[in-house]
Amino acid sequence: MSQSKDQNLRVRAAKVLPAGVYGHQSVKTLPPSAPQFFKRAKGAYLWDVDERRFIDFMCGYGPNLFGYGHREIDAAYTEQLTKLDAATGPGEIMVDLAEAFTSLIRHADWAIFCKNGTDATSMALMTARAHQNKRKILIAKGAYHGAANWCTPLAAGTLEDDRAHFIYYTYNDVESLKAAANEAGDDLAGIFASPFKHDVLVDQELPDLEYASTARKICDDKDALLVVDDIRAGFRLTRESSWSAMGVSPDLSTWGKAIANGHPISCLLGSDRARSAASSLYVTGSFWFAAAAMAASLKTLELIEATDYLEHTEKLGDQLRAGLSEIAQRYDLSISQTGPSQMPLVMFNDETGARDLKLGATFVDGLMRRGVYFHPYHNMFISAAMSEQDIAFTLDAADKTARDIKAGGENG
Amino acid sequence: MSQSKDQNLRVRAAKVLPAGVYGHQSVKTLPPSAPQFFKRAKGAYLWDVDERRFIDFMCGYGPNLFGYGHREIDAAYTEQLTKLDAATGPGEIMVDLAEAFTSLIRHADWAIFCKNGTDATSMALMTARAHQNKRKILIAKGAYHGAANWCTPLAAGTLEDDRAHFIYYTYNDVESLKAAANEAGDDLAGIFASPFKHDVLVDQELPDLEYASTARKICDDKDALLVVDDIRAGFRLTRESSWSAMGVSPDLSTWGKAIANGHPISCLLGSDRARSAASSLYVTGSFWFAAAAMAASLKTLELIEATDYLEHTEKLGDQLRAGLSEIAQRYDLSISQTGPSQMPLVMFNDETGARDLKLGATFVDGLMRRGVYFHPYHNMFISAAMSEQDIAFTLDAADKTARDIKAGGENG
Repeated sequence: MSQSKDQNLRVRAAKVLPAGVYGHQSVKTLPPSAPQFFKRAKGAYLWDVDERRFIDFMCGYGPNLFGYGHREIDAAYTEQLTKLDAATGPGEIMVDLAEAFTSLIRHADWAIFCKNGTDATSMALMTARAHQNKRKILIAKGAYHGAANWCTPLAAGTLEDDRAHFIYYTYNDVESLKAAANEAGDDLAGIFASPFKHDVLVDQELPDLEYASTARKICDDKDALLVVDDIRAGFRLTRESSWSAMGVSPDLSTWGKAIANGHPISCLLGSDRARSAASSLYVTGSFWFAAAAMAASLKTLELIEATDYLEHTEKLGDQLRAGLSEIAQRYDLSISQTGPSQMPLVMFNDETGARDLKLGATFVDGLMRRGVYFHPYHNMFISAAMSEQDIAFTLDAADKTARDIKAGGENG
Repeated sequence: MSQSKDQNLRVRAAKVLPAGVYGHQSVKTLPPSAPQFFKRAKGAYLWDVDERRFIDFMCGYGPNLFGYGHREIDAAYTEQLTKLDAATGPGEIMVDLAEAFTSLIRHADWAIFCKNGTDATSMALMTARAHQNKRKILIAKGAYHGAANWCTPLAAGTLEDDRAHFIYYTYNDVESLKAAANEAGDDLAGIFASPFKHDVLVDQELPDLEYASTARKICDDKDALLVVDDIRAGFRLTRESSWSAMGVSPDLSTWGKAIANGHPISCLLGSDRARSAASSLYVTGSFWFAAAAMAASLKTLELIEATDYLEHTEKLGDQLRAGLSEIAQRYDLSISQTGPSQMPLVMFNDETGARDLKLGATFVDGLMRRGVYFHPYHNMFISAAMSEQDIAFTLDAADKTARDIKAGGENG
């Protein structure tokens, strides 16, 4: 690998990008076979700069829902680009898209479009506080809601003041949630909740109905706003807000990643209850009104409604999960497969049952060398562009990797 | 106008967007002839949804540097889109673009690419604080540095804690800057400065050398970081960091708007002195690594270096300024034209010399009805796609509007 294009790019990157590549796409903590730079993406596949092909189970960390380079969605983008994109005012399509979102997502009466997931969560924070001019926000320990100073997982560059009025609770723990709400007293502005627990490095957890209902009830009782952060899971579990299946409606929901299949747009959706607060904010961005990404999102929503992408990704996720279970049994490996099958997290345990991150990294390294891009400690995603053949290819690579691990031929 | 498409869209928008259109592109405070929704943009022109054509002096509030729908820049975007855009890792072009920026902008040794201007200023804030683990930030009163909770101009949804460690000084006032630095004591993390004073509603001011040098010296003495926020003015005044002409180098500079001629990308540039702090942050976004906007930015940088766009916009700005002065004299109107001529701000005064916003709005309303999109209290921009004919058309519209104002035929 020493003469690879990827290695050469890493040397150049180290000079002109802080820490080489920054943020969630840095491969510093991934196994050695993980490429840092890519050349091409199409459907379910990525090619790195050295022309190695991968079936990509990260899907760009979420945006790839219908496949990379999707013909219809990209055509909607480029067609709009020839007419109007970022200009001195929005296009008609901004209204069309807001109507489409509020028609598809029942709790939503309005939309604010933005660029980053963090834009949407930051506006949710501000809307909750503006709603009744209160300060306290309840957030689940370990949950990811973005990378601004108030939410980034690392403390560097942030102040205690940035999080002065956050109270942390334990996901799915009703007593912990109630205690946090009591601590907030009359100053509760809102509760943030991920649709399911999808923190890194630990098993995923689906939400308990009691937890979700309690969060709703506390917000009703205290006139606070319930925020479901659907940035990562939105449209992966249902064609609706992720808690709709449990019958729990948020006041605010945040969306991003997959809503335009990779084109840069995110949004905050809200109910009429939160409209006045949202209307009072000054929130904006140079590219928030750009029409091309809105056209791509509108086309993506059409495909979400018109195709069986959801059932397809669930089916493939189930096949992957069943196949990996079988392989683990065959080679006497202990694995944890958690979360919805179309957003799988696969982690390994040692003989004592304790989490074994090193073994997980070894497994992912073996998969990567065989052309499958897996992640050792972050949830993955099934793309609608994947096929049963892709799952079979993946399971074959997993089988060979597991066999080598058991034979002692793979080392992390 | 009651049956216009624009009016119909406003009615629809009021239902599904908070406050109709939110943020800086809402026309709520603009004269009645300002359209809210647009249909098409090409070169220097915009067409609203009712097919009215405007020479657009807002340039999308900055992004339009070389003209809307620029053939080469958009082709760079769409060509890259067919290969790789938002994926599980960046493309080679991320390194190419960081090299291009650090080669063009002398103070810069590294780059972090992001989406919003606010992303870049927020990272500048965090980098300054991480640099020596200090808290205080000096910011000029009235300066705009974005719309996150720590910087948005309206208080709604924000807390005092969000700005707990900001100390405000007066732009170009050396004593005020020194006093703020003294107040910060040993806790000074950084100084934010706009390249020139381009606040809304007041005359623009070019920076005094003594002010800029003092800011630099304070940062040197206290090991704090100097941030020049070039998001609005970057590449409008020079092909370098905007204070380079005065020989003052920032440690950090923030860029956005025009750097990809309207495609969604912004960046934080920094010197080696700030590299370790920047490397310590966790900052990221789902679309920050997307390759297509990087390709558009790389092409824009090429055009910045290879063309006379800068001299052309200066020349047209000078022609506009001279022409408006002549018209004001001819009709005995008192106008203030401030700032660099390629980023003009035109405001009106009454007979006593006091600012007359109503007269300014009347003037802009007359221009808009004649097909010229001017702004009554925000700086404007000259696009390189404008021609001397466009300036002549604008001056003709201004002459007719001023004549009608003097004749009492225009009312705000």
